[in-house]
Amino acid sequence: MRALNFNAGPATLPLAALELARDELLDFGGTGMSIMEHSHRGKDYDAVHQEAKSLMRELIGVPDTHDILFVQGGASQLFAQVPMNFAPQGKCADYVVTGAWGEKAVSEAKVVAKMLHGEMHVAASTGEGDGKEKHYTRVPTDAEIKADPNAAYLHYTSNETIHGVQFHRIPNAGSAPLICDASSDFIWKKTDVSKFAMIYAGAQKNVGPSGIVVVLARKDFIAQGRTDIPKIFQLRTVADNDSLYNTPPTFAIYLIRNVMRWIKSEGGLDAIEKRNREKAKLVYDALDAHSGFYRVPVEKESRSVMNVIFRLPSEALEEKFLAEAKKNRMVGLKGHRSVGGMRASLYNAVPVEWAKALADLIEDFAKKNG
Amino acid sequence: MRALNFNAGPATLPLAALELARDELLDFGGTGMSIMEHSHRGKDYDAVHQEAKSLMRELIGVPDTHDILFVQGGASQLFAQVPMNFAPQGKCADYVVTGAWGEKAVSEAKVVAKMLHGEMHVAASTGEGDGKEKHYTRVPTDAEIKADPNAAYLHYTSNETIHGVQFHRIPNAGSAPLICDASSDFIWKKTDVSKFAMIYAGAQKNVGPSGIVVVLARKDFIAQGRTDIPKIFQLRTVADNDSLYNTPPTFAIYLIRNVMRWIKSEGGLDAIEKRNREKAKLVYDALDAHSGFYRVPVEKESRSVMNVIFRLPSEALEEKFLAEAKKNRMVGLKGHRSVGGMRASLYNAVPVEWAKALADLIEDFAKKNG
Repeated sequence: MRALNFNAGPATLPLAALELARDELLDFGGTGMSIMEHSHRGKDYDAVHQEAKSLMRELIGVPDTHDILFVQGGASQLFAQVPMNFAPQGKCADYVVTGAWGEKAVSEAKVVAKMLHGEMHVAASTGEGDGKEKHYTRVPTDAEIKADPNAAYLHYTSNETIHGVQFHRIPNAGSAPLICDASSDFIWKKTDVSKFAMIYAGAQKNVGPSGIVVVLARKDFIAQGRTDIPKIFQLRTVADNDSLYNTPPTFAIYLIRNVMRWIKSEGGLDAIEKRNREKAKLVYDALDAHSGFYRVPVEKESRSVMNVIFRLPSEALEEKFLAEAKKNRMVGLKGHRSVGGMRASLYNAVPVEWAKALADLIEDFAKKNG
Repeated sequence: MRALNFNAGPATLPLAALELARDELLDFGGTGMSIMEHSHRGKDYDAVHQEAKSLMRELIGVPDTHDILFVQGGASQLFAQVPMNFAPQGKCADYVVTGAWGEKAVSEAKVVAKMLHGEMHVAASTGEGDGKEKHYTRVPTDAEIKADPNAAYLHYTSNETIHGVQFHRIPNAGSAPLICDASSDFIWKKTDVSKFAMIYAGAQKNVGPSGIVVVLARKDFIAQGRTDIPKIFQLRTVADNDSLYNTPPTFAIYLIRNVMRWIKSEGGLDAIEKRNREKAKLVYDALDAHSGFYRVPVEKESRSVMNVIFRLPSEALEEKFLAEAKKNRMVGLKGHRSVGGMRASLYNAVPVEWAKALADLIEDFAKKNG
C-alpha cells in the first residue's frame, strides 16, 4: 500500500514510472541486461536518452533555439557553474533572492566572483530579519528589482522550496539574459522557454530521482560562456556532446523518460497544471478556513503551488499533527529543519486524492484541537 | 536470459544486487515508498547510506584516518576538483600518465593551474607517438617517475580502461601525497589505503551504476584543501556533511549498498580477487596460446586484470569475431572508439563462466580463422 508521500525532494514519483522501472529492471527490451548495465554509447541507451529529451521538448514546448542538457552535481553545483560560465570579467552577475536557495546561489556567486575576478550584485531581496534568521514571505515586484546595467544575467529562483514562495510571473529583468533555478517548480505547467537564457532544475521534485539536473538553455547563450574554466564545467562541453561528454547517470535519465511518458499519458502539462492548481486550492482553502488556528506565512499572491508552508499554534500541536498524519500513512509533512513548522509538497506525482486526504486532516484536526 | 556483458562501464552488475533492487523498487522495507522517494535526511535512507559506507570500510579495510565520500560528476569532474582542492599557489600538481584517462586528468589540471595561478607537471608518461595517436603499453618504473620536489601531490591512474594498462604495485612517489584514480580497478581486491592521501573511482565499473564517485581520502589531507573555491567543490564540504551537503544520488548509493552486500556474501575481497585473477588468466592464456593470431599490445607485467585489450589480424576479422560473440550472447567486446580493436572487461560482477565462454570463443575462432 502506497504511503501518502508529501516529501519536498527526493519526492514521490508516478507509480507507472516506478512500475515500468521494476518490470524492466533485470531485462531492458529483451537485451538480457538492465538499462543501467548498458553502455551509454550503445543504441539501446541512446534511444532512451533521445526519448527523454524529445518528450520533454514536446511537453514543455522547448523551442529549437534551446538545448536540453543533463548535468550532474545537483542544482547546488549549478550555483557555482552558472557564474563560472556566464559572468565574464567586467560584467556583473545579478541575483534576485526570495528564499534560502537564492541565498545559496548568491553565496557561491560571491566565491566565483572573487576566484575569477568578476562581480556580483543582489538586484533584489525580500528577506526580512538578520542573517540565518531571514524570513521570506513574498516575491518582489518588477519595480523592486534593481538590475545592474552591466549585468551578465539576472538569476532568480522561481519557487523557494523551503519558504514556499513562488513567482507567478516571469520577472521583467530589462535587457539582461534571464536565468532561472526552477528546481522545485519545473514542468508543473507549460513555460514560455523563449523568455529565458537558461532554466535549470534538480530532477528530484517533478522530473525523476536525485542525481541529475535538467538544463534548458539558449544555444547562443551557451556558446558565449567562458572557455578558461575546466572543460567539465563548461556547459558548452555538455551541449557539444549531447550530455554524453562523460558517463551520465543513465538510470536517472531512464527514469526521467518514464516520468515524461507518464505526463504525456495523463494528458500533458495542461492537465497536470489543472490538477496541481486543484491540489493546492484544496490544501490552502482548508488552511484558510481555519485561519485562527493555522497560519500561512506567505502572502497570498506569492504562495507556492508546489510547497505549502503552514504553522500551527504551538510546536506541541505541530508534533501532534504529524503523529495524526502518520496514522493516516502521510509522510514528509515536517518543514525544513532551518525554518520548522509544516510543509506539504504537492508535486506532479501527488494524486488529487492525497491532497484531499490532507485537506480533510487539516479541517478535522482544527476542529478537534482549535 | 542474461547477456554475457563485457562492457567497460557502465558494466554488468551482480544479479543479486539487481534482483534486490527490483524486489524493493516499489516498497522499501514496508514503507510504501521506493528508496528513491525517501528523503535523504530520513532514517530509512540514512540506514542505507551508513550500511553502504560501513560495508565498504569493512571489505576494503579502510582505516579510521580516511573518510569514505560520495561525490557527483563522475571521475572526469574529479580531474578538475582534485587540483582545485589540493594544488595551492606555489605548489605543483604532479601527474603520471599511462593512458587516455591520465591524459584527461592532465588536461584539466593545466586549466586549473592557469585559472588558480598554480603549477602542474607531468612526472612520467609512458605514451609513445604523437598527440591523439599516443600508444600506451606499460606503466613506468619508480625510477622513471621524476616527481617535482615541490609537489602538492602525485596523481596516477591505477588502471587505464581504454589502454588496458594496470599498475600492479603502488608507485613510490617519494614524499608527495599520493592520489589515485582507481575508477576501473577499485575494490577488485584489498588495498592498503593508508598509503594514499586519496583514492577516487567512478562507480560504474565495480561498485554500482553511473552517476556517483566513491572517494577514500585522509581526513587531514581533506582539511588542508583550498577554501577559496566554491563550497560545492570543496571535498571538505562533502566530508563535513557526510556526503549529504546537497541531495546525493540516493538510488545509486542504495545500489552500492546492494553490491557491497553481494561482495560480502561471496566471501569478501580475497575471494573476489581470486576469481578476478582466474578470469583474467583464462582470457589472456587463450590469447597467448594463439599469439600468432591475436596480439595483446600491453606488456605482460602491465596487463590489466580488469580490461583485456587485444587485436586480431585484420579489422574484417575483428568484425567477424564480434558477430560470432553476439551469436553467443556476448556484448561489449568492441574496443574504445579512440583505439579500436577488442576489449573484454572482467569486472567483479562478471562470473568465471563468462570468462570461460569467452576464452573458448577465442580458441575456437583462432582455430577456424587462423
